[in-house]
Amino acid sequence: MPIQAIRWSPTGAVRIIDQRLLPGEYLERDLETIDAVAEAIRSLAVRGAPLIGITAAMGLVAGLRAERSADREHLLARLAQAADTLLHTRPTAVNLSWALERMRGVATRCRGADAAALWNRLRLEATAILDEDCAMCRRIGDAGLPLLRASANVLTHCNAGALATGGIGTALAPIYLAQAAGRRVHVYADETRPVRQGARLTAWELLQAGIPCTVLVDGAAGALLARGGIDLVIVGADRIAANGDFANKIGTYALAVLARYHGVPFYCAAPSSTIDRTLASGDAIPIEERSRDEVDAPAHAAVWNPAFDVTPASFVSGYITDGGLVHPPFRS
Amino acid sequence: MPIQAIRWSPTGAVRIIDQRLLPGEYLERDLETIDAVAEAIRSLAVRGAPLIGITAAMGLVAGLRAERSADREHLLARLAQAADTLLHTRPTAVNLSWALERMRGVATRCRGADAAALWNRLRLEATAILDEDCAMCRRIGDAGLPLLRASANVLTHCNAGALATGGIGTALAPIYLAQAAGRRVHVYADETRPVRQGARLTAWELLQAGIPCTVLVDGAAGALLARGGIDLVIVGADRIAANGDFANKIGTYALAVLARYHGVPFYCAAPSSTIDRTLASGDAIPIEERSRDEVDAPAHAAVWNPAFDVTPASFVSGYITDGGLVHPPFRS
Repeated sequence: MPIQAIRWSPTGAVRIIDQRLLPGEYLERDLETIDAVAEAIRSLAVRGAPLIGITAAMGLVAGLRAERSADREHLLARLAQAADTLLHTRPTAVNLSWALERMRGVATRCRGADAAALWNRLRLEATAILDEDCAMCRRIGDAGLPLLRASANVLTHCNAGALATGGIGTALAPIYLAQAAGRRVHVYADETRPVRQGARLTAWELLQAGIPCTVLVDGAAGALLARGGIDLVIVGADRIAANGDFANKIGTYALAVLARYHGVPFYCAAPSSTIDRTLASGDAIPIEERSRDEVDAPAHAAVWNPAFDVTPASFVSGYITDGGLVHPPFRS
Repeated sequence: MPIQAIRWSPTGAVRIIDQRLLPGEYLERDLETIDAVAEAIRSLAVRGAPLIGITAAMGLVAGLRAERSADREHLLARLAQAADTLLHTRPTAVNLSWALERMRGVATRCRGADAAALWNRLRLEATAILDEDCAMCRRIGDAGLPLLRASANVLTHCNAGALATGGIGTALAPIYLAQAAGRRVHVYADETRPVRQGARLTAWELLQAGIPCTVLVDGAAGALLARGGIDLVIVGADRIAANGDFANKIGTYALAVLARYHGVPFYCAAPSSTIDRTLASGDAIPIEERSRDEVDAPAHAAVWNPAFDVTPASFVSGYITDGGLVHPPFRS
């Protein structure tokens, strides 16, 4: 079973693995302040849609520890301010606003509580978000397990594994469960430029768990699919619209087109919290454009560096969720 | 007009630009020995199918300078040995064996010549290969120019520009001529992992010539084509089979599938020397697999790092060659 990407430290800080340093260096960091939490999300020290949401929720609690001995109004004002700061760290993943909304809901509901009691309630809520994510990952794994035969070759993009969640991942969850069930799974991991989450994170966490993994550059996925032998593609999602269109790491859409052309099933794995029923289609999903520095081009060249792309629902064989293998439309 | 990738040094060495250092550093190096020439080709200090052939031919001459004062048999023996060494530096580009075959043909034909005369004949042949390549690039440019309107957006992969040839490139040749003709061309350059020839070389040489260029990671090409506004794709080729299937930098095949899906014309630009009429189809093209170190994956992960992939002829709108815009089959 895989590593654990986030937990409470003994002193109540948010303990993360600094994913910018992997696989060269394994460093746990304790986030103590709202600014540190925001910076960790912004700089991709933590990343992956579910993990961003969990980090924000737990980060609110850790960053407001000092305020629990203040008065209630002060805590509420700081909570609103902190949630606003965290909400604007990254735009695409819906899990971030979903988790912050849950935390704000606690404050709204606990009208009578003083600051200490309210802070305790917030801590319970953040822990619940973490625990529920673990359980959701497990159910995603259960839903995807029947798709993997006794011996399966799976192609994935980016990292939708344990390092992207509070549990055993989304796209990688069925793979961890298949391994535990004695099946032989070989994972082909796209490098995933520019941040290289596939080569750095997916390969690293699978190897930690003893699952064989082959890394290829993103451009080689077409040739790999043409060569044959890939049974299915599984990717994660940062936001899924009501019609099933979904945003995921840049390169996912190209992979979907290639999988379709080669007749290889293409699955999207995500917790239900990733479904944004307020958006009719993928056109409405905001796409984060990140710094040109990630791409490392000559100074005078322009750079187009969208972090995500949108894959139309028509390319998706099924959505592997904590509610089972489902299909759109996703209604409220 | 673009930079010049290769020439004779005043002392008769092969003067190259060390392309491994671009765009950070511009360094010209003089190759004096066969070993230095072989190492420059193997390590990608020079790369690009036409340039590899030219470098090998000129390298033979430079590396055998000392032998011109020896006897004829000694020069012939060293020539055979040197050609064999250079032939095995890289397997995929046909231009390498084509250029070396031409040089060996000179030795075969000049039966009466002594070592000095034979060496002079070899020098003339290598210079002819360089000059012919310049002229071929120009004719490729002429053949491709009608495909570019007064304002055109072109997507390309890897580097098939001046840095890949003795002249103004293959895929980029029509672009240089369009600029000279006052047309506005904007080039979108795939980064082209793992060696990053697009971000490092294509962007650099276009900017040297004042042509606007936008760099994107390979995974973003699908999203770029989906967004619309790309008029055509032009790529180079390392070897073209008689039926039109062609090998080019890994990622080319994926781009061909994506261009087809989005209804964007996809052209292959190459000199006639790239056509290998001895191969019936792309299945017979040997594909070089390069070192795992280029991909930079965790030590215990497997790496699949083919340098090239094969694009079936059915994806190609036309072949932009020094013989005009042509279509297969290519007969002898």
